Amino acid sequence: MSNLIISHAEVPLITTVEVMDENLRSMQIQIPAETQLALYLNGQKLVTLMTMGGHPEALAIGYLRNQRLIGSIGEIASVQVDWGRGVASVVTQSAVEDIEQRIENKIIATGCALGTMLGSGIDEIGEVIVPSNVLLEQLAIYRIVETVRAYPSMYKQARAMHACALFSLQGELIYFVEDISRHNAVDQIAGKMWLDGRSGESMVFYTTARLTSEMVLKGAQMGITFMISRSGITEMGFSIATQVGLTLIGRCKGRQFLIFSGKERIVFNAVA
Amino acid sequence: MSNLIISHAEVPLITTVEVMDENLRSMQIQIPAETQLALYLNGQKLVTLMTMGGHPEALAIGYLRNQRLIGSIGEIASVQVDWGRGVASVVTQSAVEDIEQRIENKIIATGCALGTMLGSGIDEIGEVIVPSNVLLEQLAIYRIVETVRAYPSMYKQARAMHACALFSLQGELIYFVEDISRHNAVDQIAGKMWLDGRSGESMVFYTTARLTSEMVLKGAQMGITFMISRSGITEMGFSIATQVGLTLIGRCKGRQFLIFSGKERIVFNAVA
Repeated sequence: MSNLIISHAEVPLITTVEVMDENLRSMQIQIPAETQLALYLNGQKLVTLMTMGGHPEALAIGYLRNQRLIGSIGEIASVQVDWGRGVASVVTQSAVEDIEQRIENKIIATGCALGTMLGSGIDEIGEVIVPSNVLLEQLAIYRIVETVRAYPSMYKQARAMHACALFSLQGELIYFVEDISRHNAVDQIAGKMWLDGRSGESMVFYTTARLTSEMVLKGAQMGITFMISRSGITEMGFSIATQVGLTLIGRCKGRQFLIFSGKERIVFNAVA
Repeated sequence: MSNLIISHAEVPLITTVEVMDENLRSMQIQIPAETQLALYLNGQKLVTLMTMGGHPEALAIGYLRNQRLIGSIGEIASVQVDWGRGVASVVTQSAVEDIEQRIENKIIATGCALGTMLGSGIDEIGEVIVPSNVLLEQLAIYRIVETVRAYPSMYKQARAMHACALFSLQGELIYFVEDISRHNAVDQIAGKMWLDGRSGESMVFYTTARLTSEMVLKGAQMGITFMISRSGITEMGFSIATQVGLTLIGRCKGRQFLIFSGKERIVFNAVA
């Protein structure tokens, strides 16, 4: 990591607009920014991400990681974000092989209507196996839910965004990120984990967003053992979790939750 | 429309899975399906959409419409969906020009992290102007909110999905669709409008989803005059609406709402 050249670009994440309410009252409210960030890998444009703008370097790294275009943080020589041009440039130590072909396969296969990584991703989940010898206490789940509830999130001011967070098994907060796209938010976490050299094993990934196939697939690829969502789950998210052995918890609010898969890893020490 | 050959393919939208709750109780709950639908235009694969599976023909048509790959329903000769193979095949009356180039531009420009249509879309919004001589009564807004609240949605059973709906200016429900992807849901409405020969002028588009740039851009392209969301809005969604002259209403719950743009089209006849 010590040789990685990386920018720390910042941009306003929230803006103020004037609106009128149902009683003809004018008022100023805050809304999230939405900015284009064009991602270049070794000078070649891959994609334009629509993002709120937080953690753009981690977003670029996490995107490349979760698309499996780059296999380890050590392959990256520099990450430079220039908000003036709306560009994130990632340069690798050595050339990325077959990049054109791999990008084309991925993007045509996945399209954009929902997923950022399905298609080839789905076929390769057989490679992923989540280790099973860690446990999560019910009380830690409640600590996580309470931490998210009390967190001074930008959502509380500006709405229209999703949060993803990483917690330890004891329920201690490690990262909390928000973006207008849940896809970006999970990629930001993936980028931060690589930058800090953190493995996903024995980690709890929390999201406000729904557990679709793509969210679960990304979590599995990041080596995450536990995924918790405030929202529900889709059939494909459910089946991927079962297949790779992730512990998946959804509809998690207050003291209620549902375990969709991997219940043998939950220690029920706060049963009502 | 009379010459259009179209399938009416159906697939289960909801499935039942066994889960365990926080008190160790096993139970069966319903979750939405998530299925791959590969979209072919004149034999060429464009994209794989991840969808719950409702209205697949309308989804295929609406996708092509909102990507501006097809300019009118009259250009389409047939739409055939085969759920056995997970394929939607659209064939046009005559060849679509420059299709390869146009697809490549779009997909590379927009990527997948969020948008299904930005990039080239953003540059062309100058073409869109929403007509201004229609009014929407506050009471009609409340009728719409109440209709959505009372609607027997699949969300109430299975969660993890977004709804989009089309209403008349009087607040009468025309379409109500749900999908695991808000992008698909808006495309399904766009497809249905083309199939039924409905213009978006004097129409109210309702969504449970956030008003990001893409949602607003699609609404504008569909000729919609009013967009209402239960959720919030992003900066780019806000600026596109202002630019094209859409009336945009967000954070609409119960009797509360905020008008983000186009307030001159609202008749305040239920001020508290």
